[in-house]
Amino acid sequence: MASLRGMQQPDLSKKLFKLIKTENHAIGAHETAGRERAAIASQLSEWGEATNDDALSEISDKLGVLMAEIAEQEDLYAQNLEDYRGVLKQIRNTESSVQPSRDHKAKVSDEIQKLKYKEPQSTKIVQLEQELVRAEAQSLVAEAQLTNITRQKFKEAYDLHFAATIERAEKQILLAKQARRLVNLIDDTPIVPGDVHHPFEHMDVARQVLNDAEDELRAWTPNMEPIHSSAGNLGAGAMPGSHSVASGNGGYEQDLQDTHPAYREKAAGSRSTSGERRVTSGTSVNSTVGTDAGPPYPINEVERREAAQV
Amino acid sequence: MASLRGMQQPDLSKKLFKLIKTENHAIGAHETAGRERAAIASQLSEWGEATNDDALSEISDKLGVLMAEIAEQEDLYAQNLEDYRGVLKQIRNTESSVQPSRDHKAKVSDEIQKLKYKEPQSTKIVQLEQELVRAEAQSLVAEAQLTNITRQKFKEAYDLHFAATIERAEKQILLAKQARRLVNLIDDTPIVPGDVHHPFEHMDVARQVLNDAEDELRAWTPNMEPIHSSAGNLGAGAMPGSHSVASGNGGYEQDLQDTHPAYREKAAGSRSTSGERRVTSGTSVNSTVGTDAGPPYPINEVERREAAQV
Repeated sequence: MASLRGMQQPDLSKKLFKLIKTENHAIGAHETAGRERAAIASQLSEWGEATNDDALSEISDKLGVLMAEIAEQEDLYAQNLEDYRGVLKQIRNTESSVQPSRDHKAKVSDEIQKLKYKEPQSTKIVQLEQELVRAEAQSLVAEAQLTNITRQKFKEAYDLHFAATIERAEKQILLAKQARRLVNLIDDTPIVPGDVHHPFEHMDVARQVLNDAEDELRAWTPNMEPIHSSAGNLGAGAMPGSHSVASGNGGYEQDLQDTHPAYREKAAGSRSTSGERRVTSGTSVNSTVGTDAGPPYPINEVERREAAQV
Repeated sequence: MASLRGMQQPDLSKKLFKLIKTENHAIGAHETAGRERAAIASQLSEWGEATNDDALSEISDKLGVLMAEIAEQEDLYAQNLEDYRGVLKQIRNTESSVQPSRDHKAKVSDEIQKLKYKEPQSTKIVQLEQELVRAEAQSLVAEAQLTNITRQKFKEAYDLHFAATIERAEKQILLAKQARRLVNLIDDTPIVPGDVHHPFEHMDVARQVLNDAEDELRAWTPNMEPIHSSAGNLGAGAMPGSHSVASGNGGYEQDLQDTHPAYREKAAGSRSTSGERRVTSGTSVNSTVGTDAGPPYPINEVERREAAQV
């Protein structure tokens, strides 16, 4: 943390950067809650033992077991939120990586305007206009990648998030309901001085409550509306993949290659830039789709590794 | 916080004192989680707007509304836990107030032993033995009050605690399920460069989701096994109350007054202590039961106020 400058995020990813940071605090709070709740579970059991009241001792000990499990679920929730946060980071990284392509296009465009005003006869203008066509093609790809990644990962992230919310809730409900059974085993009929309560008679029921809770927890399965995704064929280049026929998009890609303005524009770019093969091959959609080629803009380490894993 | 000594708790209430403190941290963690989650809800909505993607903008804004409500429920949970914590404090206060009566009994007993060894002929021994009988009677009352209060308030506390767990969970489930409906409204079919997504068509459904969530939240009612209490007739003195006949304990108290050792012991104490009417009247169960008289041992300010409210 030598300088704040290095920590600045590109404009495009600033908002999500902040959200991811706040989510980190929220996750930390749930972890703390889980930890404290686990401590309370032990403290309750110890307190119950010290009361020298057999009913309170037995019930507080078993309640402690259920509360420790509730704490465990709070911690599992925090872990699941961490997964969701990881998916948000993928969106943020894509946002960061698209920024240079936007900046580059704007810069070339600015340079052309400046030059046309200051040196209208400059031969550099033609060169820059060719570069602008390439920059625009690159930018079109980058923006398509951004929207493809963002929509897919957004759905994935909030699928995880709300599934985690439901899992914690359902499991804590079944534990809390068993806990209430335990609480009801205590007889709180008041006694007069010198009298004592009957010895605690519900040991077996109390033990059964824990068994029931364990069984229910083991039998728990997620039961919620699935989140559907049509992004299954998204290739490593974040473009519609080569398996599009299999996933019901048959012919879509082929049609576009013939007629879509984005493709035509890029083809024009290729034609007018002899000796620029490296760049044109980078912006050619054909070479990106369904192959392991990287995206046509600077990518960071995280993305590189992700692309390698696909 | 001038000295740590003043903050020390009587032995009897030390464990619960610690638990109540830990519970305070746990509640703080849930409050933090709620606050951070509310911040994330706004940040998500702002991010969605900045994407310039109408589907993401619309859905993230509405998801933000549901997440803010989930945050609200987290905060309500913390408030409910605060109520439960208040009930635990009532047990702790009773524990603290019973300590002097135990200490007093032990002290008188010690003094008698010491005196019998050092000055076996001392007339003070008889006086101390009379005091011990009174101290034992007082202690019997105090211990009965302790067990009566503890069992009743324990059930009340964990009734509140687990009801709060269930309420948070059930409400967050219904919100999370509606949130999943929203997420499913986003079409994540990948697009090719230069192409754009269809304009977002599900505005009405998205709005309906929020309405449904609101309706469900409003219609929510607690549905759980009630915690039963037989402590309904507990009087201000934490003894079986004078309404015992009405609550099904008919005749119980009267029988005990004739035969129970605790009563007989106290009667003996009364007999042997002429001129000690203040104390004997304080330890007489008859004068405590169903009246507004305070307990027969030093009580603290909290209890005095509670007793006054009954």
